[in-house]
Amino acid sequence: MKAVRLHGYHQQPVVEEVPEPSVSGPLDVVVKIGGAGVCRTDLHIIEGQWAEAMHPALPYTIGHENAGWVHEVGSAVTNVQVGDTVILHPTPTCGLCRACRAGQDMHCANSSFPGLDSDGGMAEYLLTSARACVKLDPQTRPQDVAALADAGITAYHAVRKAVPLLYPGTTCVLIGAGGLGHIGIQCLAALTATTIVVVDRNADALKLAAQLGAHHTVLADGGQVDAVRALTGGAGAEVVLDFVAEQGAEQDGFAMTARTGSYYVIGYGGAVHIPTLDIISTERNIVGNIVGTYNELAELMVLAQTGKVTLHTRAYPLDAATDALADLDAGRVRGRAILVP
Amino acid sequence: MKAVRLHGYHQQPVVEEVPEPSVSGPLDVVVKIGGAGVCRTDLHIIEGQWAEAMHPALPYTIGHENAGWVHEVGSAVTNVQVGDTVILHPTPTCGLCRACRAGQDMHCANSSFPGLDSDGGMAEYLLTSARACVKLDPQTRPQDVAALADAGITAYHAVRKAVPLLYPGTTCVLIGAGGLGHIGIQCLAALTATTIVVVDRNADALKLAAQLGAHHTVLADGGQVDAVRALTGGAGAEVVLDFVAEQGAEQDGFAMTARTGSYYVIGYGGAVHIPTLDIISTERNIVGNIVGTYNELAELMVLAQTGKVTLHTRAYPLDAATDALADLDAGRVRGRAILVP
Amino acid sequence: MKAVRLHGYHQQPVVEEVPEPSVSGPLDVVVKIGGAGVCRTDLHIIEGQWAEAMHPALPYTIGHENAGWVHEVGSAVTNVQVGDTVILHPTPTCGLCRACRAGQDMHCANSSFPGLDSDGGMAEYLLTSARACVKLDPQTRPQDVAALADAGITAYHAVRKAVPLLYPGTTCVLIGAGGLGHIGIQCLAALTATTIVVVDRNADALKLAAQLGAHHTVLADGGQVDAVRALTGGAGAEVVLDFVAEQGAEQDGFAMTARTGSYYVIGYGGAVHIPTLDIISTERNIVGNIVGTYNELAELMVLAQTGKVTLHTRAYPLDAATDALADLDAGRVRGRAILVP
Amino acid sequence: MKAVRLHGYHQQPVVEEVPEPSVSGPLDVVVKIGGAGVCRTDLHIIEGQWAEAMHPALPYTIGHENAGWVHEVGSAVTNVQVGDTVILHPTPTCGLCRACRAGQDMHCANSSFPGLDSDGGMAEYLLTSARACVKLDPQTRPQDVAALADAGITAYHAVRKAVPLLYPGTTCVLIGAGGLGHIGIQCLAALTATTIVVVDRNADALKLAAQLGAHHTVLADGGQVDAVRALTGGAGAEVVLDFVAEQGAEQDGFAMTARTGSYYVIGYGGAVHIPTLDIISTERNIVGNIVGTYNELAELMVLAQTGKVTLHTRAYPLDAATDALADLDAGRVRGRAILVP
Repeated sequence: MKAVRLHGYHQQPVVEEVPEPSVSGPLDVVVKIGGAGVCRTDLHIIEGQWAEAMHPALPYTIGHENAGWVHEVGSAVTNVQVGDTVILHPTPTCGLCRACRAGQDMHCANSSFPGLDSDGGMAEYLLTSARACVKLDPQTRPQDVAALADAGITAYHAVRKAVPLLYPGTTCVLIGAGGLGHIGIQCLAALTATTIVVVDRNADALKLAAQLGAHHTVLADGGQVDAVRALTGGAGAEVVLDFVAEQGAEQDGFAMTARTGSYYVIGYGGAVHIPTLDIISTERNIVGNIVGTYNELAELMVLAQTGKVTLHTRAYPLDAATDALADLDAGRVRGRAILVP
Repeated sequence: MKAVRLHGYHQQPVVEEVPEPSVSGPLDVVVKIGGAGVCRTDLHIIEGQWAEAMHPALPYTIGHENAGWVHEVGSAVTNVQVGDTVILHPTPTCGLCRACRAGQDMHCANSSFPGLDSDGGMAEYLLTSARACVKLDPQTRPQDVAALADAGITAYHAVRKAVPLLYPGTTCVLIGAGGLGHIGIQCLAALTATTIVVVDRNADALKLAAQLGAHHTVLADGGQVDAVRALTGGAGAEVVLDFVAEQGAEQDGFAMTARTGSYYVIGYGGAVHIPTLDIISTERNIVGNIVGTYNELAELMVLAQTGKVTLHTRAYPLDAATDALADLDAGRVRGRAILVP
Repeated sequence: MKAVRLHGYHQQPVVEEVPEPSVSGPLDVVVKIGGAGVCRTDLHIIEGQWAEAMHPALPYTIGHENAGWVHEVGSAVTNVQVGDTVILHPTPTCGLCRACRAGQDMHCANSSFPGLDSDGGMAEYLLTSARACVKLDPQTRPQDVAALADAGITAYHAVRKAVPLLYPGTTCVLIGAGGLGHIGIQCLAALTATTIVVVDRNADALKLAAQLGAHHTVLADGGQVDAVRALTGGAGAEVVLDFVAEQGAEQDGFAMTARTGSYYVIGYGGAVHIPTLDIISTERNIVGNIVGTYNELAELMVLAQTGKVTLHTRAYPLDAATDALADLDAGRVRGRAILVP
Repeated sequence: MKAVRLHGYHQQPVVEEVPEPSVSGPLDVVVKIGGAGVCRTDLHIIEGQWAEAMHPALPYTIGHENAGWVHEVGSAVTNVQVGDTVILHPTPTCGLCRACRAGQDMHCANSSFPGLDSDGGMAEYLLTSARACVKLDPQTRPQDVAALADAGITAYHAVRKAVPLLYPGTTCVLIGAGGLGHIGIQCLAALTATTIVVVDRNADALKLAAQLGAHHTVLADGGQVDAVRALTGGAGAEVVLDFVAEQGAEQDGFAMTARTGSYYVIGYGGAVHIPTLDIISTERNIVGNIVGTYNELAELMVLAQTGKVTLHTRAYPLDAATDALADLDAGRVRGRAILVP
């Protein structure tokens, strides 16, 4: 089969023939890929930023945002059958550690991460686990939803955690209306009646944000903290969801919170620097967020299938993987690039 | 091996030779039994009360409260090894349904219940699943903890759900200081600073309750509702944990709750009859409870291993199973009868 | 001033001249009434059903669903000023008991209930407390929102409690799409992405329900429990909100819940009769609900002012109070009748 | 009456005669002081550190940790009577803002802070509000509990927030076993079954910690982070309560947390510096904490009156206030110094 393989860091991956994967363990599942999202993390992988943390054996196949159809199943698989349409949780899990037993899939003590530490989904077939498969309505086109497997679940997870704080009358600021953020806006609108304020450096992103449910948009031109203060009568926001968390956004984000407010870190790259006096005197919180649970991915698919969350995507054939990566790197992709084998 | 087998309803089970079980599925585990609790439910099984709900094929081996040592494991088992000391969650689960993925083991859509719907643990060996095994300190004697597998987890689960309601200054009434209740008292004392009031018909049970942490004991002689009102300045209790829930306890239990209070049903056999006006005018709740999660069983074992929950047990050899059942039926067992093969 | 006064049970109240109220205590507030809702409870008051619980001294002024403008304030009032537009929480509270200190206004140990136990708002002026006043946008017409003061807050409170249970993919059944229920539907749609199923005996009420956000409607013709089962793939609903809770609805409501589901009692008049085995074997809950907190009323007003909750009202002059009561009793009122002095 | 008055920053306060306070507002209460705690914050006040934030008019009376007996009440006071024994919440509140209406007293939009921004309790009498008075058992000696009014409530509030995270099997690290920390240890032991690890620079403080319920103690000699890792099998602690939060403790504290762990900031003076990648990759939280609610103070008094929280105090006559301040400054006070008029 064809696969997008990374042979060395700081080199473009190549599309080449490799053997098809097949099941060996009892919970193994081979999925015929219908869509594989192209993510900024893929660029970082090529640059070697994940080499130390994940140490994959090169060459390997990238792609960690996958959906498709079940092609082959192991002897103990009971939740999906050959032919089922599925979207894949990014981290196949052990099912036996305390985190798995609490439903906290992303904190599994024994998970793998196909596309980061082993062969991923930019290929015709992917080897994964029954525990990663979320069964979809057979009408669903995998390429239309693949980006929800990673970008979507991460945004949804953060929003779902914030819901109890976002009763009517509150304000939620969302920083960064890009790949994750534009899903976050829709999740907020679907799950809460909070006032949604979106902050971004890009005027076009703000236009899209307004269409997707933002009540106010703020251009990040240096006056964004003051603008949020003004929109909240000086008080600040009960919740700030920061999908950027670098280049100063992480200082802005905390500064935008109200007394007893919570600053949710979702992006990364920067660092928070906050006097402990500022944390205690107003009793504010800084909340970490990563990916989401299997059940959250299933819930997000309900929002997608009822039209409450929609994705802007652009399809590329698998052979054009390097074009897609180049377009993403150059900022030429609106929404999400999806490889379709 | 020897096993305690039920050949027909309304007959005593017999101890007889049967083949040892062995693993076939990849997550199967065979456990050498070190202790099997004798439960009132076993008496009900013999009387045929569970035949319709569970429809086991007779003859079969009873015993659903088990601990021992891992004897053989399937190919995909990674959480325990041969020789490990284990206590067993009563319901081996699928690990793939939404309930399992949320950590709600007892609501698994595909679980079995050894000892009720298939061969149980009153035997030398038991076939179960990796997902049911909670690994213990190798020093633990299985016969000392087996009763926590079912009686214990049920009491712990209800108490843990009630903890957020039981801040200092509240009162928790516990009805029924028997097999489950005497564990519930210890869990309450370990996890809260609430005032514990224990109600029972038996003065000896109340003596034990006081030793285990009850602050007040009330003999259920007809004046128990008034007694609880008096102990709470007329207000009633924030939480009532009813381990009886039949023969009038279920009416008493709700009547003992305070405004905004919660009545936890744990026992069964009776029926609640409550005007909706009484429910809404004081905004009270009736809360169902059953068994507990895998992680809760693991937590309870921490309480046991640190001495915060102790069991009163009486050991019987496996051959004396019918004696143990007869003693239980006749009210001659203090604490819990445990079969030791 | 004019007021609608009840002189005796089983008699129509009369509109007559009484002295205007004035402030005496430091937190007293006199409100010029702009709208007073006519509620089924007013019919029950006239029938004497509340005499024993509330024992008001006759004659007195009825009306417990009030909004208007602040007319006079006591010496210690700081949250509103003369001229402010306000809606009134139904129970002025002490602010000093544990319930008040926990924000649980409706469980205040020392509250009054104007319109039930003292002079209410079907009059030109009403004496209340600073603690009952929720300040509104001065553009708001009191008559447009008055019904939110009691019907609205009760529906909102129950929905808000249920929100954590209503993640995407769940089903919420709402029984009774009348005065409270039609607000409940809108609150559910504003605060969750659950699938909303509305059950009512009246086909017109179901039509309105569908316009307000119900995804499915079920005519209560005897097959309603089966219909809900069918709509949920046999599983039942995670939450049932019962705004009727009499005449069989209370048995239907519990029967419609899924495993681990919750039956919310909001209406009253009937009684639940449920075996404790049914409660524990599926770990279901019965949840009482009454009115709501001051902050919840403020939150609901945000939903009203952003158009997410709208009321269908019909205005009557104060002099036509008995016409309004008669229309309500005869089922001739669509939405809510509002007296406008 | 006598009062401890600050006439200028960087000067010792003086004990001098001033007029007794009296009630003017309807909710005013004058309390005869039975005990006034001497707190490190008093030293900071004298040094002028609070001048800018609180800008009290000099001279004024310090002392913000007070208990005594009700001496005079305003016309609208209903919760206490002259002669009642009371402990005082540190911030008399308005009772009317959203925070007060949610029970979040310490976030009242209109509160005062006697001893910081107005006359405090190092005097024979103090003017406060009905809303600050927690009524005590008349047997209680105010001087025995006064330190719970500020040090105690702050420790209790943080522990209570952490309770849901501290199920059996978890570890809670407590940094700083001083005035607040030694109360925190007792609250943890009363409300949870977590394993308590106490970290301090002072060996004597650790000895006391072990007596009060710490399961492990760690001397902060530079190896404290490694020691906590070792005690938790390499995983870190689910919760770290940092009563120091300066001089490096705030970096240690976060470093001691486990995956999904929470670092509670209670002390202050330092600053957190954390890469956002470290926050998101393990989904950890930083949680601000300040004082506590009125109801929490009432709950803590239950723990005190049942002997679950005890204070080590040393009494000084009011005339010896400067001796007490000097002893505190010089590290000569074990437990808490209390002025007794």
